[in-house]
Amino acid sequence: MSSRRIVTLTTDYGTTGPYAGSIRGAILESNPDAQVIDITHDISRGDIREAAFVLRCAYDTFPDGTIHVVVVDPGVGGSRRGVLVSTERHYFVAPDNGVLSYIYEAEEIYGAVSLQEDHFFRKPVSATFHGRDIFGPVAGWMARLMDGGRFGPPVSDLCRFDPPRPVEVKPQAWKGPVIHVDRFGNCITCFTTRHIPLDENGLPHVSKVLTVAGEVVHLARTYGDAPSGTPCLLLGGTGYFEVAINGGSATETLGLRVGHEVGIILK
Amino acid sequence: MSSRRIVTLTTDYGTTGPYAGSIRGAILESNPDAQVIDITHDISRGDIREAAFVLRCAYDTFPDGTIHVVVVDPGVGGSRRGVLVSTERHYFVAPDNGVLSYIYEAEEIYGAVSLQEDHFFRKPVSATFHGRDIFGPVAGWMARLMDGGRFGPPVSDLCRFDPPRPVEVKPQAWKGPVIHVDRFGNCITCFTTRHIPLDENGLPHVSKVLTVAGEVVHLARTYGDAPSGTPCLLLGGTGYFEVAINGGSATETLGLRVGHEVGIILK
Amino acid sequence: MSSRRIVTLTTDYGTTGPYAGSIRGAILESNPDAQVIDITHDISRGDIREAAFVLRCAYDTFPDGTIHVVVVDPGVGGSRRGVLVSTERHYFVAPDNGVLSYIYEAEEIYGAVSLQEDHFFRKPVSATFHGRDIFGPVAGWMARLMDGGRFGPPVSDLCRFDPPRPVEVKPQAWKGPVIHVDRFGNCITCFTTRHIPLDENGLPHVSKVLTVAGEVVHLARTYGDAPSGTPCLLLGGTGYFEVAINGGSATETLGLRVGHEVGIILK
Repeated sequence: MSSRRIVTLTTDYGTTGPYAGSIRGAILESNPDAQVIDITHDISRGDIREAAFVLRCAYDTFPDGTIHVVVVDPGVGGSRRGVLVSTERHYFVAPDNGVLSYIYEAEEIYGAVSLQEDHFFRKPVSATFHGRDIFGPVAGWMARLMDGGRFGPPVSDLCRFDPPRPVEVKPQAWKGPVIHVDRFGNCITCFTTRHIPLDENGLPHVSKVLTVAGEVVHLARTYGDAPSGTPCLLLGGTGYFEVAINGGSATETLGLRVGHEVGIILK
Repeated sequence: MSSRRIVTLTTDYGTTGPYAGSIRGAILESNPDAQVIDITHDISRGDIREAAFVLRCAYDTFPDGTIHVVVVDPGVGGSRRGVLVSTERHYFVAPDNGVLSYIYEAEEIYGAVSLQEDHFFRKPVSATFHGRDIFGPVAGWMARLMDGGRFGPPVSDLCRFDPPRPVEVKPQAWKGPVIHVDRFGNCITCFTTRHIPLDENGLPHVSKVLTVAGEVVHLARTYGDAPSGTPCLLLGGTGYFEVAINGGSATETLGLRVGHEVGIILK
Repeated sequence: MSSRRIVTLTTDYGTTGPYAGSIRGAILESNPDAQVIDITHDISRGDIREAAFVLRCAYDTFPDGTIHVVVVDPGVGGSRRGVLVSTERHYFVAPDNGVLSYIYEAEEIYGAVSLQEDHFFRKPVSATFHGRDIFGPVAGWMARLMDGGRFGPPVSDLCRFDPPRPVEVKPQAWKGPVIHVDRFGNCITCFTTRHIPLDENGLPHVSKVLTVAGEVVHLARTYGDAPSGTPCLLLGGTGYFEVAINGGSATETLGLRVGHEVGIILK
């Protein structure tokens, strides 16, 4: 384990103004030995579900003891509380607005507290920038103290949404939405290997893939497997199956967007 | 205080090419123990006033002893000099082109030197990339030596502009420009709590807010206070009052841009 | 030398989704003491030549012992191998797809191995995300072990392309393409001081500069030397000559793009 505790950031602050720099500074002000690492600051504005998914794909690459700060917080300054949630290996500091929903699905919760001990906050606490004044400083202090109980009373009724899951519409026939479109235009679905097995060649064991733009014919193990320009289904690095186009953009070519259903007929 | 001195970066280098990486490398080459933290590399090209404002909003979240490097430098290689400016808690390394104007307004200057001791520079010094060859290496060395006097002779006639301030046009009636539009489309004005008090509910104590697009009717403490889609005035996390729209973009909806005047009638 | 080994990242992952955060995490998971520094994550999708050039401009600002990870990898999961390449001062971890071509031109290769020792990989190894599962973890481990031979057998037939070079078309007359357009719209050519000497004032010693948009008349030492709006030729901070416009965008004004030829008549 590192002598310098890692604090990650997942926000919708963008990178053009002072906000990302300010939360980095506030973490380091409360703990100059923290190692501040970005997951991203480019979550779509106020998009709790996108932030939840991006966090889900990235958090578990980090070492044990990492503290993940997630600030997509359209209700900042209102009645939603802030929380610190502990799992077996990681800690999460965030508004209690559902942004940790995938974590609650993937991990056992060891403890959760409401952030009420305000001597850990940066003063004065602004009504509109809790990332800098509450979440960042709490993460910095947590990286020193490593004792979640210091930050407030335990809570159990954490706010969550149900992450999208495939639904069986007929025997062997499933449908489920696209949940993310990545930089490459790959359309990441909610199907995982729990729903679609891989065959002995690493190909999805599927007989039909149906989208708004018609059938996806090709099954692939890597992006390069499909002929250039041909849509394919493959298991992506996120752990979810994607509709992708080798050298092209599936979202542009197929018009496939977040929320659109993909139908899968298993073999 | 950290054993690893923090060096922040505020530049217009962007993040797509080699420039941001090159200045990070140059800091670490002169001081591999420096902790390099971005404020932003996405200042609009050559926009000294934007850089000055973004720095102003972010710098004081960082711990004592932080060294802030600011490189928005349209006059690179010309007659403008480079400076290292010391304040009570922080240090600033920048071209002497006004980019530290808000710092001069907010902080007492403990000392300032012209960067002339070229044995601290990266050689050969390019005529077009002083961030990599002068400002970055000087910051790295300053993080080791912590003695500004080593880098050149003292200077006192620092270049500055007057940060925009509200003007009283009639008793209780003020006007002042928008000075920044953030990622969320919030229009940040030059009004602070020195000009507009907050009432006991955290609302601006104001009777009228006038913009190019007509009157802003709602006063708010948080973004969520105003009905969705309704423009409001509230105190932002930067310490300046903003015209904002809950869940929307004030700049797009109202056509309000940097430089546009906002009129305030106090209660 | 730092106690904390530096690992840089040059990728086309973008900054909006989980990929950049995931590779940062994977490096830190294999070595929490590594210091992860971005060169850029904004290489154009799959553009090996752009990545090679950006790396070439930034790598040698970093201190001795730095490990550079370069992941622009359209052939991920296919037959291309991964390599670790050692030079006098630096190490490079990348797919063997030509992305290190400028390094092979600029540096003597001290050793190169094929990444086959899979106990250094993150498991299970995805077919589509070797940055997270192979290149990142190998870099983290290399930062601990500093012994390239541990990662696989030596290889010598490294994949490379010939970086664009000026061609002499007549005595004193050369032509060569634009190889990069930077954030400022400056068009960086393949000409260096090996082809074009600087005169005693730091100006390119050239009698004519010809582009698709006609002749560039002005020769300059710094961006501010040329009258505002006038295209000029000057030696950029990358070490390559650029066609630039003071306060403007050469690529937009002149329509000059990557691949377009620039003709130079020497004095």
